[in-house]
Amino acid sequence: MNELTEQDIEQFLLQCRQVVGETFVLTGDDAMRSYLTDYRQRYTGSALAILKPATTQQVAELVTLCNHCQIAIVPQGGNTGLVLGSVPDQSGRAVVLSLLRLNQIRQTDLVNDTITVEAGCLLQQVQQAAQAADRLFPLSLASEGSCTIGGNLSTNAGGTAVLHYGNTRALCLGLEVVTASGQIWDGLRGLRKDNTGYDLRDLYIGAEGTLGIITAAVLKLFPRPASYATALAALPSVDAALALFHFIRSNGKDCALSAFELMSAYSLTLVQQHFPTIRQPQLGAHPYCVLIEFSSQETAEVVTGALESVLHAALQKQLIPDALIASNLTQSGEFWQIRESISEAQKAEGKNIKHDISIPISDIGHFITQTDALLEQQFPGCRMVTFGHIGDGNLHYNVSAPINSSVDAFLREQNAINRVVYDSVARFSGSISAEHGLGALKCDDILRYKSPVEIQLMRSIKQALDPNNLMNPGKVVKPLP
Amino acid sequence: MNELTEQDIEQFLLQCRQVVGETFVLTGDDAMRSYLTDYRQRYTGSALAILKPATTQQVAELVTLCNHCQIAIVPQGGNTGLVLGSVPDQSGRAVVLSLLRLNQIRQTDLVNDTITVEAGCLLQQVQQAAQAADRLFPLSLASEGSCTIGGNLSTNAGGTAVLHYGNTRALCLGLEVVTASGQIWDGLRGLRKDNTGYDLRDLYIGAEGTLGIITAAVLKLFPRPASYATALAALPSVDAALALFHFIRSNGKDCALSAFELMSAYSLTLVQQHFPTIRQPQLGAHPYCVLIEFSSQETAEVVTGALESVLHAALQKQLIPDALIASNLTQSGEFWQIRESISEAQKAEGKNIKHDISIPISDIGHFITQTDALLEQQFPGCRMVTFGHIGDGNLHYNVSAPINSSVDAFLREQNAINRVVYDSVARFSGSISAEHGLGALKCDDILRYKSPVEIQLMRSIKQALDPNNLMNPGKVVKPLP
Repeated sequence: MNELTEQDIEQFLLQCRQVVGETFVLTGDDAMRSYLTDYRQRYTGSALAILKPATTQQVAELVTLCNHCQIAIVPQGGNTGLVLGSVPDQSGRAVVLSLLRLNQIRQTDLVNDTITVEAGCLLQQVQQAAQAADRLFPLSLASEGSCTIGGNLSTNAGGTAVLHYGNTRALCLGLEVVTASGQIWDGLRGLRKDNTGYDLRDLYIGAEGTLGIITAAVLKLFPRPASYATALAALPSVDAALALFHFIRSNGKDCALSAFELMSAYSLTLVQQHFPTIRQPQLGAHPYCVLIEFSSQETAEVVTGALESVLHAALQKQLIPDALIASNLTQSGEFWQIRESISEAQKAEGKNIKHDISIPISDIGHFITQTDALLEQQFPGCRMVTFGHIGDGNLHYNVSAPINSSVDAFLREQNAINRVVYDSVARFSGSISAEHGLGALKCDDILRYKSPVEIQLMRSIKQALDPNNLMNPGKVVKPLP
Repeated sequence: MNELTEQDIEQFLLQCRQVVGETFVLTGDDAMRSYLTDYRQRYTGSALAILKPATTQQVAELVTLCNHCQIAIVPQGGNTGLVLGSVPDQSGRAVVLSLLRLNQIRQTDLVNDTITVEAGCLLQQVQQAAQAADRLFPLSLASEGSCTIGGNLSTNAGGTAVLHYGNTRALCLGLEVVTASGQIWDGLRGLRKDNTGYDLRDLYIGAEGTLGIITAAVLKLFPRPASYATALAALPSVDAALALFHFIRSNGKDCALSAFELMSAYSLTLVQQHFPTIRQPQLGAHPYCVLIEFSSQETAEVVTGALESVLHAALQKQLIPDALIASNLTQSGEFWQIRESISEAQKAEGKNIKHDISIPISDIGHFITQTDALLEQQFPGCRMVTFGHIGDGNLHYNVSAPINSSVDAFLREQNAINRVVYDSVARFSGSISAEHGLGALKCDDILRYKSPVEIQLMRSIKQALDPNNLMNPGKVVKPLP
């Protein structure tokens, strides 16, 4: 198509203002800045405008206008993504469509155990609405105070509750979507069972806004656990962690194993160095430790007793050398604080290279051993900060520069280091993005690891549902050049 | 394209024989009969041949040959479907591609808790392989001895364990698929988390073979429950059943509520009439009763105690007038036998009109009241046999002819009765096929209940992934005429 003239663009923006009101079409660098820079502040794109609709109908009208002018659309929630999925490229030809004003809780149905929310609701807002209704919405992430549920759905976010409740996909029953052509698909069903055609819901979930714009969703609610118990267990190896994981799954009675998080000894050392006020339990020197959480509908005594009992049995069977059960909520909070401070501690130690990978659980030990060795061989002295949701097979397998070396020189090796890690992930049939999506950051990397058949299937779907390539172009999968 | 000549067809069949061997290309009415008639014996289609490949590679070669000749393919597993999804139409221009010879358990990974199976494995075979490995594969259906896992995946089958474990979709981590163009997509991932692009897996699951052919899958395994407890509770109304359901979910401690099945008094009466040897418990005359099952990793005493305790509390709160807990496995088996004999009892009473519907759980009571009244008004004396997975919002809402009336005359009203029921389902935002799929049977009905936007999205996907409309044509969604 022809390039738009200045006049075309003015006309387009005028029409946008007619849809959402003067105030909600932002132009100019100052007004747009926070929408154009990614969460980790590594990249700033450019845009014609930021559009801020307040209703699904307005979203549909804006998408229709964009189609008319062939203007690309970057849907954006809280802009907390880690793979450059929610910021535009630098062409300046796209608009950012912010969902933040679609922030109503539309309905809570306590008999159906569902909540219907708009895409721009903050995750925390959804959690709080559930809690106010004496229910649990279990999705929980570090950025829950600023990420939106629409973004969570579009990236199929993970977080700390996946082991028991599943990813975001598993928490959603129905969607409302504005399609790439500007039509509204009302798929807001609150049904546990519905086999009437293709699974459009799961296609839009995790599509990172490249097939359409999620504007609302029906989410599942759960009973709130009455109590939790938390422990730290020392471990000689990753394989020992897996053996413990299975021992607990088979012998943990009926309490839900709601977290099983690995932390390498070096992760704990970094936390100790950079957050010396965080009390660390005395478990002796062991290569790894896991944080274990049980949740239950019974009393705190019962759930703590169950965790004690299974860890006692594990000690007797020499599955673990040592363990410590939190004796109260404060201590439990301290255990979680250690886990949640690892990223910050590593950041305080200096910039590093992060990987969000998953591996079949049975191969995680081999993966770490082999990949650690490959990295040490090619990048001697690099420091591995390995931790994460090992119960899901998902590791944050981060690499820090060697001590007393140039961090900048190390960061210049990022592509080479990613290559070593991702190639190893591929050898173990793993995923190079377990939780975060592809965005623009891993969109080219993935071509190396998925078969041409799969890439072609993805391109066919993109072409079918967004024939003009206007929905978040350059993310997830690009058309053939 | 041009019509195929006899010679083209002979040439095609010759090539098929070269792929799978002489023995595994069936032609002739006798050899083909059982593949052409549906499970309920209501419909017999016609085909050029039945093709029986033994490997994924052979499936791919056959699909390639079919593409070359533009011959339609009807994939078939155990042919136990209820919506005419696995039999060909009467044109005689399609082939049936039977997956029954792809029946290997490829791998069991007890650390990853996964099993990799070929599509033609019987569901029972998968259950038994899991059990042999001291694990549970929870999918369970009446036809488990003859249905295949490929068919279960293609229809996203439900069954009796959905309440706790989810539908088939929730039990699958990865797929191998032969695409409509005859390529093999190896998506056999054993990962709990993988956010690297569009959710092709869930698109093929539930697509009833209209987008490609599932040839293998990675399935989740679970710890086997150590014990079960079963009870029957009498209830004055459907709303009382829902109140009990929530009371148990909130007060049932940590035992898993693994079944919650509604049975109307008339369902029980029919079982009593036609299966007088099945012992029915003395619960007095109440409009409904529910079968409740707890499963647990604890002892039988513990789980029975938990069920006793919650039902005792429900009695005290007058949520239920009466309840009976199975005192041993025999009695538990009897309770389940009542539930599982309802369909057969209704069949013995005479042909009837079945509906497999789901409704948001909060509206099931209203749905039944209103729809019962509408049916009685338009078809006086018709007998409702209402039972099913009420914990999932899924009812078997079946209609028998009035007593002493002509069953044939009644059956001629089938379309009108379906219309009343489905229109009512739509008013309550429900689904006209909760478990069974659309197949050829409900493929036209659904056009009335889904929005044009959704139908168009489905057609776009069909067109994108099966541009020649060769994969199970006439099922799920048809191209525009």
